Amino acid sequence: MTISAQSIFDGLLPERLSFRSEADYFAPSNIALSKYWGKRDKELNLPLNSSLSISLHKWGSQTKISVAADGRDQVRLNGEAVDLEQPFARKLIAFVDRFRRGQNLPLNIQTFNSIPTAAGLASSASGFAALTGALDQAFGLGLPKDKLSMLARIGSGSASRSFWHGFVQWDRGQLTDGRDSFARHIDVQWPEFRIAIINVTSKPKSVSSRDGMNHTVATSPLYKVWPEQAERDCADIGAAVQDKDFSKLGTLAEANALAMHATMMAARPGLQYLLPESFTILEKVRELRADGHEVYATMDAGPNVKLIFLQSSEDDVNANFPQAQIIEPFAAL
Amino acid sequence: MTISAQSIFDGLLPERLSFRSEADYFAPSNIALSKYWGKRDKELNLPLNSSLSISLHKWGSQTKISVAADGRDQVRLNGEAVDLEQPFARKLIAFVDRFRRGQNLPLNIQTFNSIPTAAGLASSASGFAALTGALDQAFGLGLPKDKLSMLARIGSGSASRSFWHGFVQWDRGQLTDGRDSFARHIDVQWPEFRIAIINVTSKPKSVSSRDGMNHTVATSPLYKVWPEQAERDCADIGAAVQDKDFSKLGTLAEANALAMHATMMAARPGLQYLLPESFTILEKVRELRADGHEVYATMDAGPNVKLIFLQSSEDDVNANFPQAQIIEPFAAL
Repeated sequence: MTISAQSIFDGLLPERLSFRSEADYFAPSNIALSKYWGKRDKELNLPLNSSLSISLHKWGSQTKISVAADGRDQVRLNGEAVDLEQPFARKLIAFVDRFRRGQNLPLNIQTFNSIPTAAGLASSASGFAALTGALDQAFGLGLPKDKLSMLARIGSGSASRSFWHGFVQWDRGQLTDGRDSFARHIDVQWPEFRIAIINVTSKPKSVSSRDGMNHTVATSPLYKVWPEQAERDCADIGAAVQDKDFSKLGTLAEANALAMHATMMAARPGLQYLLPESFTILEKVRELRADGHEVYATMDAGPNVKLIFLQSSEDDVNANFPQAQIIEPFAAL
Repeated sequence: MTISAQSIFDGLLPERLSFRSEADYFAPSNIALSKYWGKRDKELNLPLNSSLSISLHKWGSQTKISVAADGRDQVRLNGEAVDLEQPFARKLIAFVDRFRRGQNLPLNIQTFNSIPTAAGLASSASGFAALTGALDQAFGLGLPKDKLSMLARIGSGSASRSFWHGFVQWDRGQLTDGRDSFARHIDVQWPEFRIAIINVTSKPKSVSSRDGMNHTVATSPLYKVWPEQAERDCADIGAAVQDKDFSKLGTLAEANALAMHATMMAARPGLQYLLPESFTILEKVRELRADGHEVYATMDAGPNVKLIFLQSSEDDVNANFPQAQIIEPFAAL
């Protein structure tokens, strides 16, 4: 029996909603150190493997919700009104409608992305998390974070990981309705941990992550072994985080990212999010390591490269990648 | 029970050898359209999967053997004497010694590689094939080609495929002694078939094919599914050759090559023979196809890219890759 996404919302929300208060919710963006790649349920965004991420501190999405004075939904992005027929607004309103279920609750929804557009980072993770958190406030639902994570997951899988700062793990879960597939915070503080974003291009990618994932699962002969390996990587990376074993964490995170890209490369036809410039950066990272610097790379469904390293390597990273944007995920907010 | 490589030679050769005639043997280089990647026996070079290649016409190795007048082995490469302590000469003499088994038969061995050094193509395939063929002549062995292929395989796996022009298939075989693991000619003439070699660098690679293969088999989680997929690709590519279905052949050959590189990318640590420039070429090939030109790429354990296409696309390939060296594998010799 297939379970509809709507039935999950129905099961958690009161039958009648009412607007309780203006809402203002921030969710950080996140980068997976152990990747989410492949769904066991496309409607519910249930993953074939668990994943583990680090959040991007102040970089994320802030969503404000108020009553729409004129009785019609309004969507604004970074201060600009968005036509409701635009894909961004349509996806957002479709998600809000899962809460409203036909009830007349017109909303004014403003989203601010603090992620520099040039960074080329996906904003859907923080965007759906911030929207879910703001809707919870606006309708006075008081849902716990595991439930917010589960609902946001239905909007965008990686949004489930955007409700906390620091390290977050999204357990794949086993149930067909996904009640056990949500993220949780990992209680580890690691003030020396650093992330650098190296932008390769800000051009929109030609294949969405969602389509790339589905194409890979459907056609890549090498994908078959990914879920099992990814589950093992996630457990091992989780252990490295607990032990604060940076060499182990970095080695595994880079290997896990390369394995994910390898599954795409072997898709039929092959799928290549990485550009030649991405490989140039990867080569430079390997050279840095050969010179004794503990810097590791990870790449998502796009050409940009993210580095992870500790504070002690920050000068080397700056010197070798002057264009990098450095993030301190454990700095005070 | 492990079987020694020497016992295979012992089983095929007469106990006493004698020099019968001066020898002169040519073997073409070859490029796999369905790749050999991974060994089930490292000493005997027995593959985990069958492979299929196209030979490179006049590009290959010519080996001449005569009696060494002064009673000491001599090795010459492209007319230059080679010190017997050099790796090239040591490997060559070690292979000759498998035939001689301590008998006093000093030889003068001259090898000419017609493969332009700049093309960056491996010469071990044609080199071991030409050497095996020349030894067969010099000692008057009269071995059939399937036996020559089997013996050359012990020198270098892909050498088993260098005894014929045109399309050649190396069946993996099942036996532990490798008696059934040799190549055979595929009786298909395809005069319009073209190969282009695009040189990315002529720098020697930092990891040999042999080491790269062994590292991938030992550490890449994605390698597990390769042998089965490669066997299927080989059969499908063989069928496409028989049917002269170029679209199918090209699509499968490119996918097979990418899958092989994907297994390396997922090795731990990752192995990357392709350079950023290789990916730039691959991108251009994809664009050519998007414009309706049937051009496909294949890459071996190195950064150079080989294109396959039909005569009708030759002008387009020349225009887009002026640096390419074009080969007509079915031209008259």
